[in-house]
Amino acid sequence: MRMSKLLVPTLREVPSDAEIMSHKLMLRAGYIRKLAAGIYSYLPLGLRSERKAEQIVREEMDRAGAQELLMAALLPSEVYQASGRWEVFGDNMFKLKDRNDRDFCLGPTHEELFTQTVINEVRSYKEYPMTLYQIQTKYRDEARPRFGVMRSREFVMKDAYSFDKDEKGLDESYRKMYEAYCRIFKRMGLDFTIVDADSGAMGGSGSQEFMVKSPVGEDGIAYCDACGYAANYEKAQCIPTKKEYPEGDLSLEKVETPDVHTIEELVAFFGTEPYVFAKTIIYKADDKYIAAMVRGDREINEIKLKNLIGCVNDLELAEPFMVRQLTNAEVGFAGPIGLDIEVYVDLEVAQMKNFIIGANETGYHYKNVNINRDFTPDTVADIRVITEGDICPKCGKPIKTTQGIEVGHIFKLGTKYSKALGLNYTDESGEPKVVIMGCYGIGVTRCIAAAIEQNYDDNGMVLPVALAPYHVIVVPVNNKDEEQMKLAEEIYNNLNEQGIEALLDDRSERAGVKFKDADLIGIPLRIVVGKKCNEGIVEYKLRKDEKPEEKTIEQAIKDAVSYIKSNL
Amino acid sequence: MRMSKLLVPTLREVPSDAEIMSHKLMLRAGYIRKLAAGIYSYLPLGLRSERKAEQIVREEMDRAGAQELLMAALLPSEVYQASGRWEVFGDNMFKLKDRNDRDFCLGPTHEELFTQTVINEVRSYKEYPMTLYQIQTKYRDEARPRFGVMRSREFVMKDAYSFDKDEKGLDESYRKMYEAYCRIFKRMGLDFTIVDADSGAMGGSGSQEFMVKSPVGEDGIAYCDACGYAANYEKAQCIPTKKEYPEGDLSLEKVETPDVHTIEELVAFFGTEPYVFAKTIIYKADDKYIAAMVRGDREINEIKLKNLIGCVNDLELAEPFMVRQLTNAEVGFAGPIGLDIEVYVDLEVAQMKNFIIGANETGYHYKNVNINRDFTPDTVADIRVITEGDICPKCGKPIKTTQGIEVGHIFKLGTKYSKALGLNYTDESGEPKVVIMGCYGIGVTRCIAAAIEQNYDDNGMVLPVALAPYHVIVVPVNNKDEEQMKLAEEIYNNLNEQGIEALLDDRSERAGVKFKDADLIGIPLRIVVGKKCNEGIVEYKLRKDEKPEEKTIEQAIKDAVSYIKSNL
Repeated sequence: MRMSKLLVPTLREVPSDAEIMSHKLMLRAGYIRKLAAGIYSYLPLGLRSERKAEQIVREEMDRAGAQELLMAALLPSEVYQASGRWEVFGDNMFKLKDRNDRDFCLGPTHEELFTQTVINEVRSYKEYPMTLYQIQTKYRDEARPRFGVMRSREFVMKDAYSFDKDEKGLDESYRKMYEAYCRIFKRMGLDFTIVDADSGAMGGSGSQEFMVKSPVGEDGIAYCDACGYAANYEKAQCIPTKKEYPEGDLSLEKVETPDVHTIEELVAFFGTEPYVFAKTIIYKADDKYIAAMVRGDREINEIKLKNLIGCVNDLELAEPFMVRQLTNAEVGFAGPIGLDIEVYVDLEVAQMKNFIIGANETGYHYKNVNINRDFTPDTVADIRVITEGDICPKCGKPIKTTQGIEVGHIFKLGTKYSKALGLNYTDESGEPKVVIMGCYGIGVTRCIAAAIEQNYDDNGMVLPVALAPYHVIVVPVNNKDEEQMKLAEEIYNNLNEQGIEALLDDRSERAGVKFKDADLIGIPLRIVVGKKCNEGIVEYKLRKDEKPEEKTIEQAIKDAVSYIKSNL
Repeated sequence: MRMSKLLVPTLREVPSDAEIMSHKLMLRAGYIRKLAAGIYSYLPLGLRSERKAEQIVREEMDRAGAQELLMAALLPSEVYQASGRWEVFGDNMFKLKDRNDRDFCLGPTHEELFTQTVINEVRSYKEYPMTLYQIQTKYRDEARPRFGVMRSREFVMKDAYSFDKDEKGLDESYRKMYEAYCRIFKRMGLDFTIVDADSGAMGGSGSQEFMVKSPVGEDGIAYCDACGYAANYEKAQCIPTKKEYPEGDLSLEKVETPDVHTIEELVAFFGTEPYVFAKTIIYKADDKYIAAMVRGDREINEIKLKNLIGCVNDLELAEPFMVRQLTNAEVGFAGPIGLDIEVYVDLEVAQMKNFIIGANETGYHYKNVNINRDFTPDTVADIRVITEGDICPKCGKPIKTTQGIEVGHIFKLGTKYSKALGLNYTDESGEPKVVIMGCYGIGVTRCIAAAIEQNYDDNGMVLPVALAPYHVIVVPVNNKDEEQMKLAEEIYNNLNEQGIEALLDDRSERAGVKFKDADLIGIPLRIVVGKKCNEGIVEYKLRKDEKPEEKTIEQAIKDAVSYIKSNL
């Protein structure tokens, strides 16, 4: 393709509303344009990269024996009503009515539809195991769409669903997907980590996430270099750490603490350490209010807590007026003593002695609190966020933490949907059994953003060959020089004939502009045809390398073909 | 692919709600399944065919120099408000609100967005001509979705838009698309006709439709075998035919016609021919009512009339209470005399003399009516439907009519959108000019249905090689026979290695079932490995041929490869 014929509207300025590098670069390199919050169009380069990611996913899914099909995106409400998810998705689902006032939504995920398809179309147990997938546009009305295509409202996802006769079959289907996912992300050039993930809320029996480590990732990962343990924050088990507390059974004491609300203020006021306090947070959990307590130096993991409570919607902090009504005090003085709602207490809090809590009275705290003497928790469980320095639950060595971008998720669903919708089969002996399911997702558009987050420098993207929109860009330094242009054309044609996707920068721009654009759009290899072309010499530069090399034309072409093919 | 691993849920029964063959066969062959009215999912075979159609379109668009990009389907209302089409689309557009109560729709067509993209991204007149396209899922809330994927509410469309500096440029861009469309439909194996199409309503200067002739087509085509003229009904120019009427200036006479409403009843009552009557129909045209008159043996072409009036919405027949209010009579007695609304009169009516019309009084008609003496038309124009036997407007020979399925449409938009949205450029001399646009659509999913309508027999689909989901099916007659199975596997592997997409029917079904399925799903070539395999003989049968041939294995493979490759 000739650059003069290609719509690549690169930007020199950094767009003001882009916060992370992949978003900035995809805008600057003319890959995407915003149409509305979380909704993008793909310009030619962005679309090519996206299609390459799709094709890698498709090839590896097919290789793993999965069958591709394609569901609609506009779905009648009945699909989700049978499983109860029409309500569960809440505001996250785009809902609409057709001209006949019938309820529809834009599919956020397709478990129900695949289950129903198998109910309708599979006629014999002999057809299992079966894994079906689609690469399809999904819609989620995110509360905070951001980071470009990383968290958007219209995005391409690969979702796959496996159907097996028994747990052993599911294990095997799951393993195949695990391996396919490893191949997919490896081919995409992503540096990824596989972490144990939470499966509580969806009722499954096993779950792993494929994470691309990145400071801009929205998911916390806890990992252990010593034993290889890795889990996301929701799943990571927290081992209670021991702290020193005053010995003995000291008397409960109410202390006046005017204008002291935060843990920092309390620490200053009492002249002690944060771990001597226990904080009490009031949440709205579906249609009830509950209290949760963690140590003063800890944070509540709301997903762990949500799963523990078993509520459907995400937890919400109680409104201030409700805090006042429930605690008889302003926000900042809540505590478990005399509180008339369920109290969930973290494992570490259960180990504390003679500690300090809010008194449910504005301007007062209790000190020397002891559990079971002064209040009785309704539930004691692991409800906190793991932190750097925590103990590895597997080997006891110190845990490290980092942030990750979730690019894939594999999940043993078990019988959640097959039971809810009635997906059964009759086995060899005529006995009716429930089909066991797994589900497997990849955020295809997100993969491109993740690849950029891991591969950029000051000048732009440094895309892996497999995801780059074109492999090689041939740049004549001066396109008024006939010899340079002729040679550049020859190299360009030669590469294309050998199956290399080459760009020719035939625009009448200064060489500096062409080099800047080539770097920005992340083409893996640049061949520059300049003054030495009459000696048969061109400049050969890998995008990831600092410096160009001079090569003969033949050598440059040969090396280009070999480099690209070996990196596909 | 092995049939035992492929989800192909064929049906022996004809689904009750399917009216046309392509719909019946796509359901029976396990290509598609209905999710809601006009909304389908694609099972593996259907998806493969659809993707092949997409790929043919993509290759030919690329070859014609068009650039692929991809817009979102979920679009903010502002996109359509600027052009006024947010209202124009009316009930045909799926509209919804996001969680922040902002208006969105599911894009029915993307003229505005492409225009806006070019406004935003193109920086110099040197970038024109430019043709951009996408292959994308479109949404239209059809009043009567039907015929399977032929008229569905979620469908894949290729839409392209050309941007030129002047009319000459547009002519050239249009010509390129015309040629690309010819190649596309030829490669798809479609027998198509190119007809002149109406371009009035959209304000363009030229328009052609690519029609697949078929009795189930929803569009009427008028054509002339003598000179090659072809136009759709909306565009086809009607030459007034002459009829004999009573001579002289006879006196207007009011005749009592109790219980006589229809033309048939009038013909019987007056004992004369239908062409002696002129019928008057009252329409609602946007926010006004109008009357239209054609000869008693003619039908009004509502599209011609709509374009003539210049109204935005489709015409609707006036409600009976409005007919009563406007004519002071029951439905069936409307006429132009004394009618206080605009009257549109067909060219043929203007030639009539001493004819019969409704009297605007229940139970009465006027006879011996003469235009200009008894009433004055507001507009005289061609507003009727062309019919078989009409005169060709180009050569005067008799016109023929048929039905067609519109698979493509190319259209000189002109400056409609560039003016409305402000797409200008500055030319070489620094002068500001308006960009001239064209738009070009292909109903990709509809192409598959059209191909089936033209290619089926009693046993199922007879798909063109280029659109068939697989090229060859290898069928061992008895898959308990080891030799047959081994040989079938060898042929299957050999074909796949040569780039032929082969299926192996390895299911433990009776041979009759396998043959029936192979025919139903329309695989172009079947190779049967039966008893003669120990002599090295197999059965070679083209789906379109009646009878199989016996061939040696080597010859069968060689012929298969050659047949498939020459038909791709």
